Amino acid sequence: MTSHGLEVLERTPRVLRALLGDLSPFWTDGHEGPDTWSPTIVVGHLIHGERTDWIPRARLILAQGDNRTFAPFDRFAQFTESAGKSMAQLLDEFEAARAQSLAELRSWNLTDAQMQLTGEHPVFGTVTLGQLLSTWVAHDLSHLTQISRVMAKQYREAVGPWRAYLSVMDK
Amino acid sequence: MTSHGLEVLERTPRVLRALLGDLSPFWTDGHEGPDTWSPTIVVGHLIHGERTDWIPRARLILAQGDNRTFAPFDRFAQFTESAGKSMAQLLDEFEAARAQSLAELRSWNLTDAQMQLTGEHPVFGTVTLGQLLSTWVAHDLSHLTQISRVMAKQYREAVGPWRAYLSVMDK
Repeated sequence: MTSHGLEVLERTPRVLRALLGDLSPFWTDGHEGPDTWSPTIVVGHLIHGERTDWIPRARLILAQGDNRTFAPFDRFAQFTESAGKSMAQLLDEFEAARAQSLAELRSWNLTDAQMQLTGEHPVFGTVTLGQLLSTWVAHDLSHLTQISRVMAKQYREAVGPWRAYLSVMDK
Repeated sequence: MTSHGLEVLERTPRVLRALLGDLSPFWTDGHEGPDTWSPTIVVGHLIHGERTDWIPRARLILAQGDNRTFAPFDRFAQFTESAGKSMAQLLDEFEAARAQSLAELRSWNLTDAQMQLTGEHPVFGTVTLGQLLSTWVAHDLSHLTQISRVMAKQYREAVGPWRAYLSVMDK
């Protein structure tokens, strides 16, 4: 990750607030079918990532201890952790968690050499700190793609014949 | 389109500003390869849509005159109209154009019956005002999907083996 990545990580809470704050449940609870995620579920997933994935894994790499294998990430934690919470609560939680993550990241003043330090991913094997932090950035953008796609699909029928021009509807 | 659609149309300028305002050219000028669009190009395209597509077509339908066939939309106008403009300028232009569009839309106080009025799309044939306005909403979301996907792809190599988990990278 370069300084470019930090620009994205800083922006995501504001982007999600601009898009999802005070938005109707029609949009925030809509999904793409059975076993797919609504925007509300996605925000819960991002919160869980702040708490258990990115910074904890980066700490593990930086410590360079004997066990450098990451704990598996629970992709379904938000179904219990965020259950019953409003979008307003979730956006506040995410903003606070992200601010805390970035404060810690900045405090490390990472060098290029540290970016090459490695840990062990439970599936992929050896990965670098740089790859982990870059993935954090891409993961934000990937879920913003998902949220906007899921929202678009709520109008799949409403657009009538224009569906043929909106490839997002059938992704 | 229902009132839900208006919520999205109102938010898009703020969402784009939160995501793209003061962002490095690394992100705003990145694209997916030859003949694909950067976020800057997409914002130019959205501006052109405000000026020539959505509201002008809605006016044509509401007038119910003899010629109800839409002028074809120029998908490449932004390459000349927006050439050389900064992202800050484009975001300001889009915000102003969208505000003007929504002021006109609201002034119409559209009824359910008016939503069923029709025009002629140069390719699809007969379409309703409701379908046109719904497409405006879905088009915003579709391009937000595109912008976040294009940005994510700038880190396609940087994420290393995580690419296998980030389907957005290969869309």
